[in-house]
Amino acid sequence: MNNLNDIAHFLESRDNFAILTHIYPDGDTLGSAYALCRALRKLNKNARVLINGTLAEKFSYLAKDMEEQNFEYETVVSVDIAAAELLGEFKDEFESRIDVCIDHHASNSISAKMIYVNSKAASNCENIYRLIKVLGVEIDPLLADCIYTGVCTDTGCFKFTNVTPDTMRIAAELMELGCRSAEINKEMFDTKSCARINIEREVLNSLKFYAENRIAVVYTTREMEERTGAKDSDMDGLAAIPRQIEGVWIGITVKEKGDNYYRVSVRTNDGHDAAWICSKFGGGGHFAAAGCSVNGELEDVISLIVSASIEEINR
Amino acid sequence: MNNLNDIAHFLESRDNFAILTHIYPDGDTLGSAYALCRALRKLNKNARVLINGTLAEKFSYLAKDMEEQNFEYETVVSVDIAAAELLGEFKDEFESRIDVCIDHHASNSISAKMIYVNSKAASNCENIYRLIKVLGVEIDPLLADCIYTGVCTDTGCFKFTNVTPDTMRIAAELMELGCRSAEINKEMFDTKSCARINIEREVLNSLKFYAENRIAVVYTTREMEERTGAKDSDMDGLAAIPRQIEGVWIGITVKEKGDNYYRVSVRTNDGHDAAWICSKFGGGGHFAAAGCSVNGELEDVISLIVSASIEEINR
Repeated sequence: MNNLNDIAHFLESRDNFAILTHIYPDGDTLGSAYALCRALRKLNKNARVLINGTLAEKFSYLAKDMEEQNFEYETVVSVDIAAAELLGEFKDEFESRIDVCIDHHASNSISAKMIYVNSKAASNCENIYRLIKVLGVEIDPLLADCIYTGVCTDTGCFKFTNVTPDTMRIAAELMELGCRSAEINKEMFDTKSCARINIEREVLNSLKFYAENRIAVVYTTREMEERTGAKDSDMDGLAAIPRQIEGVWIGITVKEKGDNYYRVSVRTNDGHDAAWICSKFGGGGHFAAAGCSVNGELEDVISLIVSASIEEINR
Repeated sequence: MNNLNDIAHFLESRDNFAILTHIYPDGDTLGSAYALCRALRKLNKNARVLINGTLAEKFSYLAKDMEEQNFEYETVVSVDIAAAELLGEFKDEFESRIDVCIDHHASNSISAKMIYVNSKAASNCENIYRLIKVLGVEIDPLLADCIYTGVCTDTGCFKFTNVTPDTMRIAAELMELGCRSAEINKEMFDTKSCARINIEREVLNSLKFYAENRIAVVYTTREMEERTGAKDSDMDGLAAIPRQIEGVWIGITVKEKGDNYYRVSVRTNDGHDAAWICSKFGGGGHFAAAGCSVNGELEDVISLIVSASIEEINR
């Protein structure tokens, strides 16, 4: 494990950077990558962000006013990538040649010459912010936008338990440096696609309660996805809906993935063990958020997972 | 207009405080009132918070471990109250005897001996935080909870355009002082009543688009409210739903209030004028958020307001 000074010295001594982001790229991996890319270019380096797929329209401002650079990659940096499997389309080419890994996942298992993992950082962009300070690069408004994007998206707009006083102070400074915080917040947290609204409606229409309203279940089918036009990105966070309901201990989301094949997400409140429930079906996860896959007819799958949840409540 | 030093000196010289909160009490008026009440009691004063109605269960922690005090009111302070009409049940008794008004609404029209209005504060709790600093009172975790409550609720958890770097830094300090920020965030922003979930479903089921999806309309009827058990507090913020939809310029929410009588809320994006639309029906408000009342059958009301919205788009 290296410190940020080591990492900064190493970056200063190198050039021609490929900055890797993880599959299903989110605001933190993209924000980290574009912030670092902009900082390296300010040091007159060649640097490029590599994205699995294409940059989503909602994140296009991260790349604003950046020129295309063509060069041969010499130095490879991974940002916000916890494990090699998350490299996606870059795994084969880059897995064994990562020079620097900068991450905030405690479980990080990336192999790299230099590694900086700070799991106290709510977002990896907090790490990148500190690194850029060590590099002595001035943070302009577009760079501030990049850092802010990870800071706000990985914390649910400063809502989650991972937020620290440092998170808030970094955000304060980025605002003073001219980041478009309110616009980014609106784009990330107050804008929903039509398909998202429609699939949310379907989810709410499917809502059923069990065990005196302590268990709430919703589901989605492939037919619903087709009818509403919902893509994977539109389905993000649907699993949060049933647990939000007042008085609910166990929120269950059942998603049809194939013929008689369902993915189940369990979210719990008030000390109930989601991982225990999912382990009964060969799944697992965290205490308050876990998942498993179950075969069968929809009604049977719901019935099985509700039974296991009742068992968890009673044990 | 007085400064916080004047206000602090005055409060120090007085005793037996009644602290007034506004009708439909929210997190900012309640947080302001309980924070000030706790601070005054730490200065060995008698102080009490007066609430229109009763303290909602979700805000009960604001009053945690506070003893009942019985005394005759000598000094009256209003917090987060912009106008006398918002005094509610306290108007007759207190309107003409308010000693100190502390607020953050630029439109404040309260008559009081001493007035401190700082409209740059995202929440009135920011003003109260600064006042407590001037008073030299130590902020303990329960007091920090009170201040944090207004800071987060009036900013949509640090999401809205009113957030400043100061807002973020005050929140950082409150976290260091031991406030339960993540728990309060969860209670305020990630918990929905069953009735709320049900009325949201009804709202989504009512969604219709006009003008090539630039206008989105939802409605609620008294029958829906009855069927779902939704109270006023469950209806808060429903008007935000249609404007959230990607590509929508004008989001309209129509709420049945009486026989052939509807309250219309208009929210706009991208430079469209909600106040202009509502002014056509005798209403008004802000550029991006306005309201009006319209008589007629539901379909006719929707048709009228959609026509005015199309006119706004085309003008």
